[in-house]
Amino acid sequence: MVRKRINLEPGDSVAGNGILSRRIFLEGAFVAGAMGAGLSGASAQPLTVQPWMRVPGAGFTGYGQPSRFEVKVVRVTPPPPNPATQGVGPSRTPLHLLDGIITPSGLHFERSHSGIPDIDPDQHRLVIHGLVKRPLVFTLEALHRYPMQSRIAFIECAGNGLLLNAPQPQQIGMAALHGMIGCSEWSGVKLSTLLDEAGVSPSARWVIAEGADAAAMSRSIPLTKAMDDALVCLYQNGERVRPSNGYPVRLLVPGFEGNMNVKWLRRLKLTTGPAMTKDETSRYTILLKDEKAWQFVFPMEVKSMITRPAPGITLKGPGFYEISGLAWSGNGIIRQVDVSADGGRSWAPAALQGPILPKAPVRFRAPWQWNGGPAVLQSRATDNTGMVQPTRAAFAAERGLRGQFHYNAIASWHIDEKGEASNVYA
Amino acid sequence: MVRKRINLEPGDSVAGNGILSRRIFLEGAFVAGAMGAGLSGASAQPLTVQPWMRVPGAGFTGYGQPSRFEVKVVRVTPPPPNPATQGVGPSRTPLHLLDGIITPSGLHFERSHSGIPDIDPDQHRLVIHGLVKRPLVFTLEALHRYPMQSRIAFIECAGNGLLLNAPQPQQIGMAALHGMIGCSEWSGVKLSTLLDEAGVSPSARWVIAEGADAAAMSRSIPLTKAMDDALVCLYQNGERVRPSNGYPVRLLVPGFEGNMNVKWLRRLKLTTGPAMTKDETSRYTILLKDEKAWQFVFPMEVKSMITRPAPGITLKGPGFYEISGLAWSGNGIIRQVDVSADGGRSWAPAALQGPILPKAPVRFRAPWQWNGGPAVLQSRATDNTGMVQPTRAAFAAERGLRGQFHYNAIASWHIDEKGEASNVYA
Repeated sequence: MVRKRINLEPGDSVAGNGILSRRIFLEGAFVAGAMGAGLSGASAQPLTVQPWMRVPGAGFTGYGQPSRFEVKVVRVTPPPPNPATQGVGPSRTPLHLLDGIITPSGLHFERSHSGIPDIDPDQHRLVIHGLVKRPLVFTLEALHRYPMQSRIAFIECAGNGLLLNAPQPQQIGMAALHGMIGCSEWSGVKLSTLLDEAGVSPSARWVIAEGADAAAMSRSIPLTKAMDDALVCLYQNGERVRPSNGYPVRLLVPGFEGNMNVKWLRRLKLTTGPAMTKDETSRYTILLKDEKAWQFVFPMEVKSMITRPAPGITLKGPGFYEISGLAWSGNGIIRQVDVSADGGRSWAPAALQGPILPKAPVRFRAPWQWNGGPAVLQSRATDNTGMVQPTRAAFAAERGLRGQFHYNAIASWHIDEKGEASNVYA
Repeated sequence: MVRKRINLEPGDSVAGNGILSRRIFLEGAFVAGAMGAGLSGASAQPLTVQPWMRVPGAGFTGYGQPSRFEVKVVRVTPPPPNPATQGVGPSRTPLHLLDGIITPSGLHFERSHSGIPDIDPDQHRLVIHGLVKRPLVFTLEALHRYPMQSRIAFIECAGNGLLLNAPQPQQIGMAALHGMIGCSEWSGVKLSTLLDEAGVSPSARWVIAEGADAAAMSRSIPLTKAMDDALVCLYQNGERVRPSNGYPVRLLVPGFEGNMNVKWLRRLKLTTGPAMTKDETSRYTILLKDEKAWQFVFPMEVKSMITRPAPGITLKGPGFYEISGLAWSGNGIIRQVDVSADGGRSWAPAALQGPILPKAPVRFRAPWQWNGGPAVLQSRATDNTGMVQPTRAAFAAERGLRGQFHYNAIASWHIDEKGEASNVYA
């Protein structure tokens, strides 16, 4: 068995402050003992027989749950501001405690505008009307008759990262800073199939999508997008869509800002122009530094973040660590992610975990030899349109820092001598 | 917007009894009104405002659950045979109620040999010993120091489909017949990385993997596989591995029979030969018709099944339906899936949903115009090694029908005039 081996010597650093070559992931293995995390000296006998091996374990359950030892792995929810408006706001994913690209449905972020409706699927209807030849009403059973499609795609709230806009870096944890992005395998009927079924009138240019929550959350979607890759989703990660993500039907507009992926979808109206709903005028427009605002900026721009190390995970002494994170682009496919351990002075490419899919997150990994001193970790993603994540300074120079949406600048974690990570502007 | 349209005329059938061209999935859309599942005559006003839109919805929860209306979507578990041996046996996935390729972790099948141990991750250790230069003990924290990898992979119990061996076709439902296969995104450390760290002695050829359940479930794994693509998994579908699937550490040996993916992994011993544990002698050998048995048949052979229509789903009148299912091969990549509506007399290729990954299930879909008469639906998978699913007759001629493991013959659903599906031998 001949395999390439990579010798972890100081000379193998490919960027400053201990960033090593991604060849570790791409090609080979380490020399024996290079990592040194395992404690040597084990032997077969005696190997402790723990109490859980001495008795039969638990029996079967119909629907499984995480271990009781993982009870702290939960979404970060804001305290209820007002009993009359429960469920308004975001609930964020603890990304530093996860790995891979799929977000477990129980931890997928939520952004609700009037709580989570308790919808009876047998009573729910989806209507297509407006500029169509034949208005149609679909039951859930009717939707199941159509050809389906599955795809792995991210959904990111337009406001994800908005607290990175604060004048001083906020020490509020990974979920609160970055946790309004999730990724699922979505399955359902192509919206184009249903629109073809209704017969779109030649004058139609927009589709107004409305949710069945008490806020009747509504967004205008260009017909070109609706006919391209929009999906009327019935399934999320294999099972029926979760209530917090739009049960029993949600719209997926891959790559577009989160709120356009309308949850609890009840109505699609074909029109000549956008509806200018409250959700696309008073909200989800991008305030610029000159007092003007951008409206209808749909795709989420190229972005990345390091999820480990991160605030909430303390490094235990100098030595080898994996730097791991997620990168994504609403405009296409991630082509490259670079990482830095010296605040952006030097960079090295990270390994990208396949499959690399359009409008889906990519898990990146880079090897790092921490010398125990201070470091500033950054990641910088590039997509197949050539878009590169800007520095915070470049982002601020273009848009200012008063906008609440579509913040995609390079983020930084400072690692101190104790191995603790904090949010810094670098 | 110029798009190809496919006219659903009887002449478009590409195989007997109503199988249509997969071009519907690959190329274009239908002519308006071709499907006819939507009820026409909808109009914008009045659109019923259901009670759940009249009040604010529910607030946030830390860890979300499925809708209360999906309470019947659960694993099918056997009744407890004996209070002293709870949790012995399988718990099966209701595949006919799912879509996509990811199995929600709460519904992933289980096969346990002495229940689910309640393991404290801070106390759990993984030991590598035997023919190594340096025996090593790993805590969970130590495993997190190593470079990780993610992959989407199926795990199938060697006994999946064993009840299709019965002399008469059993009417026991989808989960009981086929439900011991699941698919997750698994993340963890390559086993080769840990073995390199310990330093494998030149004489080692096998790795004995042992679980920390009360059965100390153990299997012998060829070192070549261990060094190839085996993964020591810490994460399943983004979050920590579920207790029923091996929390806090399970082994993944992609494509190999389920029980070799040892759950609750506590020990890896390097040896010159297999250990001949109870789990690879008294069980998990394949009894042949000549009273001999095959031992150490590791990869699960190419296989497929139709998950919709299926027993438990009643077709509501003639017309268009999607035939959908899963295909997989422990030897590589699915290259083709053919479907038949006339019991195998004629076949047409199904559309395969990307990404098509090695040792992962592929969702296939085929359009079907049901004429309301009897039909026998079948699927037949082919992998990139050229292996094709055998007919039941061919399978029986080679192996007989007394074996309990690695049954991979073509399965058949009979559809009657009421639209109900049943298990038949065709």
